[in-house]
Amino acid sequence: KKNYRIAVLPGDGIGPEIMQEAVKVLTLVGEQEGVTFTCEEGRIGGIAIDTDGTPLPEATVTLAKQADAVLLGAVGGPKWDQNPGHLRPETGLLGIRKALGLFANIRPATMHSSLVDASSLKPEVVSGVDLIVVRELTGGIYFGEKKRYDGPNGEVAEDQCIYHEAEIERIIRVGFDIARKRQKRLVSVDKANVLESSRLWRKVAERVAADYPDVELTHQLVDSCAMQLVREPKQFDVIVTENMFGDILSDQAAMLTGSIGMLSSASLAAGSFGLYEPVHGSAPDIAGKGIANPLATILSVAMMLRLSLGMDEAAAAVENAVWSVLEAGHRTGDIAADRSKAIGTVEMGQLVRDEL
Amino acid sequence: KKNYRIAVLPGDGIGPEIMQEAVKVLTLVGEQEGVTFTCEEGRIGGIAIDTDGTPLPEATVTLAKQADAVLLGAVGGPKWDQNPGHLRPETGLLGIRKALGLFANIRPATMHSSLVDASSLKPEVVSGVDLIVVRELTGGIYFGEKKRYDGPNGEVAEDQCIYHEAEIERIIRVGFDIARKRQKRLVSVDKANVLESSRLWRKVAERVAADYPDVELTHQLVDSCAMQLVREPKQFDVIVTENMFGDILSDQAAMLTGSIGMLSSASLAAGSFGLYEPVHGSAPDIAGKGIANPLATILSVAMMLRLSLGMDEAAAAVENAVWSVLEAGHRTGDIAADRSKAIGTVEMGQLVRDEL
Ligand SMILES: CC(C)[C@H](C(=O)O)[C@@H](O)C(=O)O
Ligand SMILES: CC(C)[C@H](C(=O)O)[C@@H](O)C(=O)O
Repeated sequence: KKNYRIAVLPGDGIGPEIMQEAVKVLTLVGEQEGVTFTCEEGRIGGIAIDTDGTPLPEATVTLAKQADAVLLGAVGGPKWDQNPGHLRPETGLLGIRKALGLFANIRPATMHSSLVDASSLKPEVVSGVDLIVVRELTGGIYFGEKKRYDGPNGEVAEDQCIYHEAEIERIIRVGFDIARKRQKRLVSVDKANVLESSRLWRKVAERVAADYPDVELTHQLVDSCAMQLVREPKQFDVIVTENMFGDILSDQAAMLTGSIGMLSSASLAAGSFGLYEPVHGSAPDIAGKGIANPLATILSVAMMLRLSLGMDEAAAAVENAVWSVLEAGHRTGDIAADRSKAIGTVEMGQLVRDEL
Repeated sequence: KKNYRIAVLPGDGIGPEIMQEAVKVLTLVGEQEGVTFTCEEGRIGGIAIDTDGTPLPEATVTLAKQADAVLLGAVGGPKWDQNPGHLRPETGLLGIRKALGLFANIRPATMHSSLVDASSLKPEVVSGVDLIVVRELTGGIYFGEKKRYDGPNGEVAEDQCIYHEAEIERIIRVGFDIARKRQKRLVSVDKANVLESSRLWRKVAERVAADYPDVELTHQLVDSCAMQLVREPKQFDVIVTENMFGDILSDQAAMLTGSIGMLSSASLAAGSFGLYEPVHGSAPDIAGKGIANPLATILSVAMMLRLSLGMDEAAAAVENAVWSVLEAGHRTGDIAADRSKAIGTVEMGQLVRDEL
């Protein structure tokens, strides 16, 4: 009987609540597919700061490295917001990305037809939106050298944005590989009219394109892309971009759908290893109330089944169960038109499992 | 009789057509107010590359420096897209910003009620949007050191993002000064959870806030701000941010209104000197056809009258003339619901002058 080791990092805020439902779904999938998922819990973010004195304990990195895949809830909260950099929850997130070599962040923004009303955009603009942002996750200005010093006129701060050709090439290839399985349209986003790193980015994208003659590659400047995402999001199939631009554009794209509580993401290393997490944050304001939407985390389980464990059918089954529950009209508060009819986290998780 | 010298830089594409209408409006204002505007033309962008071999001839910088204010059309076009960096139209734009010390870019995104339908957002989400993005324009990653070299695994490219305390302070003050005259709500946007320059930015914003106790300062991370602009743009009064984030967010904010052909911008130096230009580009596809919308350029004239020449009433008169023309139902093609009824550039300019 096949056995997969899954590192489960619930994190902070609503993290533990939503993770619980996701793990229950995973367990059920295991029973149905005759596979064992050994879920081992680790700490990351604020809870790790409180317990271990660091947002990313060594034990968590080891646990993750020994696993076949990682499921993450969410990190952060007001309690740690004033902490110095090395004691902030996000530092744990950045650290685990680097430690595990998770260079490819995959963020689908898909508008499910029954949720069109949740968007702030007109239905005719968003219905049918189905795009993926592929974001480089371990390079660029996030991980370049940082400096802070006193100059003649006060303090000076520097961040270095650095990209190596090989780093660009591998993420561009991920973009092409994904586009190839979809509508075969890849938009590479940069700021080549200003940045040297973007000029190298564009050059590498052009070179790699020769290996994908079946995929159409176009380039968009980041400012135009931010406009086009608002104006006509349906024009996009796959967007590939560097770390900082990807942070901004993927969040913008997510919000177009109006239901960020529904969106999951994958952060992949070379090979099949990956970390899976909802796009939304730790929502400290509703933590512990049992009202958080567990669907993004459940859909992250589906992404994990497909991308790290090769269990395509099980992944599709989980996704279909989620859509069926939505189509039957069940909603958590964040996506409910009528909040008085909203159901809770556990109830939503149960409905998905019933459907499965 | 008062005499102002205005440097007029029509640039490329639709630039000359729209500038012609703007200058006619300016001339009329001069007659009405008993002021002489001496408009002197200079070259910038593609036309300057073709004529002078550089996107920013020395003569243009001199002309601008001797003027009281600068009006710019738009630069760029496919003809120069493949040129090396120093021979690209945008390089002229970046160059003139730096040469004239235009550190404060002011970009209002205002939803005029008669144009609500042009937006891709729901009417209830955009009607009433009235925000200003204040973007730092001469620092950050745009002007930091750039490097390109061969590493062990192919080429490497670097961009340095650098901010001095004094640079941050002066733009933050511009943000506060503008907010003070409006709804007194300033959102400072950064990525303080990742970037050193953002941490300095936030620190300076906090310090300067002490001088503006009447203005409410809040901080937003750039990724959240990109989300919030989509979700609920009405929450914003004034946004202040660094160069790269401002490039992206101001374009996103502009597109929320759906009528980018209506939006103008100012780039200000210390004192009253400024450069005024429409937010839209050179639109090479419709250049020379006489169908471009001149209203953003005409509204740039109004911004110039107010911000550089202290002619507040004349500025308001121009703006009101534009709103009246719109309310009477006149539209250029870019903002027309029924394109068959769209009017041309010259006709639109004439209608505004008639109204004045
Ligand atoms: C928390 C933060 C450091 C992180 C990022 O900027 O990458 C987050 O915004 C994300 O997108 O996962
Ligand atoms: C043309 C380009 C260099 C410029 C910028 O990025 O500043 C433009 O996008 C703008 O916003 O004025």
